[in-house]
Amino acid sequence: MENLFAQRLENLRGMMRSHGWDAVIFTGSDPHNSEYPAERWKQVRWLTGFTGECGDVVVTLDHAGLWTDTRYFIQAGTQLAGTGVELHKMRVPGQVSIPDWLPLKFDGGNEVFIAVDGLCIGAGMVREIIDKLAAAGVQCNVVSVPDLLSALWTDRPSVPQTPIFTVDPGEDRQSKIARLRGWMGEKGADWCLVSALDEIAWLLNARASDIEYNPLVISWLLVGRESVDWFVLKDDIDDGISEKAFDEVGADGVELHPYADIEEALMDLDGTVALDSGRLNWHLYNISAKGSILDCQNPVAWWKAVKNPTEIAGMRAAHVQDGVAMEKFIWWLEKCMENEKRISEWDAAVKLGQLRAEIPEYRGDSFETICAYGPGAALPHYITPSVDAPVLEPHGLFLCDSGGQYCGERFCGTTDITRTTPLGPCTPLEMEDYTLVLKSHIDLAMAVFPKDMATCRLDAFAHMPLWRSKRDFGHGTGHGVGYFLGVHEAPPDFRQNMDGRPLKAGLIHSDEPGIYREGMHGVRHESLLLCKDAGTNEFGSWLCYENITLCHIDTSIVVKELMSADELAWLNAYNAHVYAVLAPLLPAQVAEWLRTKTEAIQ
Amino acid sequence: MENLFAQRLENLRGMMRSHGWDAVIFTGSDPHNSEYPAERWKQVRWLTGFTGECGDVVVTLDHAGLWTDTRYFIQAGTQLAGTGVELHKMRVPGQVSIPDWLPLKFDGGNEVFIAVDGLCIGAGMVREIIDKLAAAGVQCNVVSVPDLLSALWTDRPSVPQTPIFTVDPGEDRQSKIARLRGWMGEKGADWCLVSALDEIAWLLNARASDIEYNPLVISWLLVGRESVDWFVLKDDIDDGISEKAFDEVGADGVELHPYADIEEALMDLDGTVALDSGRLNWHLYNISAKGSILDCQNPVAWWKAVKNPTEIAGMRAAHVQDGVAMEKFIWWLEKCMENEKRISEWDAAVKLGQLRAEIPEYRGDSFETICAYGPGAALPHYITPSVDAPVLEPHGLFLCDSGGQYCGERFCGTTDITRTTPLGPCTPLEMEDYTLVLKSHIDLAMAVFPKDMATCRLDAFAHMPLWRSKRDFGHGTGHGVGYFLGVHEAPPDFRQNMDGRPLKAGLIHSDEPGIYREGMHGVRHESLLLCKDAGTNEFGSWLCYENITLCHIDTSIVVKELMSADELAWLNAYNAHVYAVLAPLLPAQVAEWLRTKTEAIQ
Repeated sequence: MENLFAQRLENLRGMMRSHGWDAVIFTGSDPHNSEYPAERWKQVRWLTGFTGECGDVVVTLDHAGLWTDTRYFIQAGTQLAGTGVELHKMRVPGQVSIPDWLPLKFDGGNEVFIAVDGLCIGAGMVREIIDKLAAAGVQCNVVSVPDLLSALWTDRPSVPQTPIFTVDPGEDRQSKIARLRGWMGEKGADWCLVSALDEIAWLLNARASDIEYNPLVISWLLVGRESVDWFVLKDDIDDGISEKAFDEVGADGVELHPYADIEEALMDLDGTVALDSGRLNWHLYNISAKGSILDCQNPVAWWKAVKNPTEIAGMRAAHVQDGVAMEKFIWWLEKCMENEKRISEWDAAVKLGQLRAEIPEYRGDSFETICAYGPGAALPHYITPSVDAPVLEPHGLFLCDSGGQYCGERFCGTTDITRTTPLGPCTPLEMEDYTLVLKSHIDLAMAVFPKDMATCRLDAFAHMPLWRSKRDFGHGTGHGVGYFLGVHEAPPDFRQNMDGRPLKAGLIHSDEPGIYREGMHGVRHESLLLCKDAGTNEFGSWLCYENITLCHIDTSIVVKELMSADELAWLNAYNAHVYAVLAPLLPAQVAEWLRTKTEAIQ
Repeated sequence: MENLFAQRLENLRGMMRSHGWDAVIFTGSDPHNSEYPAERWKQVRWLTGFTGECGDVVVTLDHAGLWTDTRYFIQAGTQLAGTGVELHKMRVPGQVSIPDWLPLKFDGGNEVFIAVDGLCIGAGMVREIIDKLAAAGVQCNVVSVPDLLSALWTDRPSVPQTPIFTVDPGEDRQSKIARLRGWMGEKGADWCLVSALDEIAWLLNARASDIEYNPLVISWLLVGRESVDWFVLKDDIDDGISEKAFDEVGADGVELHPYADIEEALMDLDGTVALDSGRLNWHLYNISAKGSILDCQNPVAWWKAVKNPTEIAGMRAAHVQDGVAMEKFIWWLEKCMENEKRISEWDAAVKLGQLRAEIPEYRGDSFETICAYGPGAALPHYITPSVDAPVLEPHGLFLCDSGGQYCGERFCGTTDITRTTPLGPCTPLEMEDYTLVLKSHIDLAMAVFPKDMATCRLDAFAHMPLWRSKRDFGHGTGHGVGYFLGVHEAPPDFRQNMDGRPLKAGLIHSDEPGIYREGMHGVRHESLLLCKDAGTNEFGSWLCYENITLCHIDTSIVVKELMSADELAWLNAYNAHVYAVLAPLLPAQVAEWLRTKTEAIQ
């Protein structure tokens, strides 16, 4: 029997021939440029079988290629075998991106017809493709077919719809809309099209579970000078819960419309609409661009990033409960090792989920839990397999990166934490790597720096303890975390890329340096830092951090000679603080264990 | 009697009236955009009496203003009294630059006539003025009059001409010219106009003393695909020494022309000329722009910044000799204090110059020596007064920032060093500031970091020991230093400005953090760091630094509790190295004193 995906590819090519298309492009994006697309928009997976989070596909009549980055080369190699899809490597020297590859492919032609699902490809990418083909003398005709793949994907899932509810994060939606209208007034915009789901959720104080790990409502928002139109109604939203939310937003002047009606609304707009073509899909961009547009980023991402006192209190409270689950988990893990119990990475991930689920406010994980033992931990984006997962052994390092979404009576918030735990004796190299990553982690947490510092300037500082011994990690040092929203928010985007965006009091971002040694081990320490005002003096205005994550850091394999006195003092104070806050909330035997785990080291 | 400068201003206004000029602009720049203009081009000083290194003047029929920055506010206030020139403050919140001020001044007018000495104003500034006036609805007619001020400044000095000689820095001029032609070929340029004096000196391996502190030849260089034209001959270059240099460059195919003939040469050019309008003067830019120009930076500044092995050896050797002078100086200073000898800051500066002059290769200072005691040291750009200089007292901190230009039989090179020395008991705050600045200085010197790191990313790292106690300094952390060329070279330009230019092996730059407390004291520690290859491993390619400056760092007021073990180890090793290298070259009693000064502290 022929490969399922090869067959799908052939069916697609039949469609291409009948329409006269030279190429079809599918991206991993949904219509909202979301980090996690819903099942309906996992088109690359359906077509090729590739399950990585990042991948775009180009199909021509004689070639099919998947573009993905270093993280997924091995996985893509395995999953694409027999499909007829070839791997195109990105983030490597000499990489050829899709917009660069197409002119090579169609070199010498006069014109090409390229079909896309205009809803699921960014306007920026399409424009780059058109421009680069034009520069090569090839006229590119883009045929935009919304839901293009549905003709072949007969059992394609529909747009998700889960009950919608509201939250009270310390600023009401009328205030937020008024802020946005103030900005629109300054910019001379009559309308603002908000397409990013977390920005809509933040503006309307509304949440749902339409997307895995993300409490978001798949919808569009069109804010006018005097109107707010929310394109949210799907086939059957009559769930009993959402009504209350709709009543509430309706009372604030928000008008509800069917999800798909955004197209018609954009067609009928008078005046100038502010939108961000860098993040909007090609289909809606084209409709909007028939009128007058103001192409720029709206300030919502920034407003959302700076947490208010209610949000900060919620995040702190969520971290107390999350810390309780984490301490119970590490205690359980140690007991399993002591009792020579056979547990796999997957068993550990399941256990942690169960412990978080004991918290009344728990609404699910904030991303897929990574439990990785030994060599698995050397892959920063390891996916813990549910079947045949590696079994933990009572030596070496175990890395667990996880987080929860919380919302309930007492608090709402989002967490993201990584602890690397020794399961028994460790090698000198494991201990050294563990300690150097810890130094990096602590040094950033201890930093004091001028107001409005650009993250990229502080980033090198966070790497230095590793660099001194010529070690490093390839991912970002930190990312913003939402208030019961996405666990990966930007800004802030804490990495080396030249990015002048400033650090401000109220931002919350992760601090997660690491070291990864292929085939050996991986270390990462991650907590969330709250950026706080540290006063003004004759030398300027200052910011510092508060570590809001609460889970002890294991001291048993710290190489004390590598730590400065300041770093040791920070570590002891942090562990003492964790014990003081969490012990009263833990079962007696876990609390007693935590007391020993948090004893100061000299 | 009326103020001399008020009189000059009135004479200028007479000239303006007779020509119908609404405004005249003078900048502090020379035709080559040099950091240190020769006397002939100190037009702002002649017109207003202001002697600061940075200042531009605008004169209208009813206003005269000097634009300068924070460093010079006090000085300008004093020097401008009675002249009728008003101070316009730059680098302050709400600053209004000249291009922003002119539209306010001429608001409502239809057109203005602004006269400039086109040779002494940058093309970029003139274009900004024209654009900003146009945006305000005012047509700006720029009247460019080369040497405009000469009509009033009757005893104006001529263009300097000092003997020209050649150097042998490890790469001959034919090789350098070939490199430049390679770049021109890539860019499609037929000509490259080199206007920066240090780039000309580097390309031709030629030096002179036309500019104070800078061994440069005032000239123009026009490199063609097959010709090299050097516009260097002034009124009387027949000095006996220059002939040898001219013979040598002539043998390499360099054709000599009178200095002023550059204008005619540019007028007659066929083909595309590469030039940098950001640094070229308005007059030559306009002549060039009549033809085809390629407006970009040439790569010479980068090539010059990366020192070759000969240059590195020269710089190291220069620092050995410079260190001998510095140690003799600090020894002398201590003895003066012990013997209660009355010496002023100026006496100290003179003494240091005498000690450097004992070195056969000494060609002069690389900038004006700063000797500053107590509150004077709180001004980062203090100028030691030759008359009534403050007298040193046997307590508190003395800051000395100085450098030499060396070229002779054994070596060539340029130095720049700052040492802050306790002259006796110090306050706890002086000691703490001294120690924190030392930590910053050492931390950067110890840094290991990935190849091609941007300086602005590493800059925050160098500030962190100060930031942790909410202290900071407002100047750059470091600047490039030439090989027997300018002491302030860029790149590298080590400061917070977002600047993606990479650090590379072979660069030499200063490491000079500080703390300045107005009315109290100032601390700065400065050495030159050579950026070196530190190997490649699985995590990447690495760079590190070698401190090439040789002069002990006083340990008597180091607050040891503030230093990390690494920092103390670095300090002890550095001082031991200084002693080992310099002791054999010092008189016995100074060597013995240095032994005690460089004893390790625990």
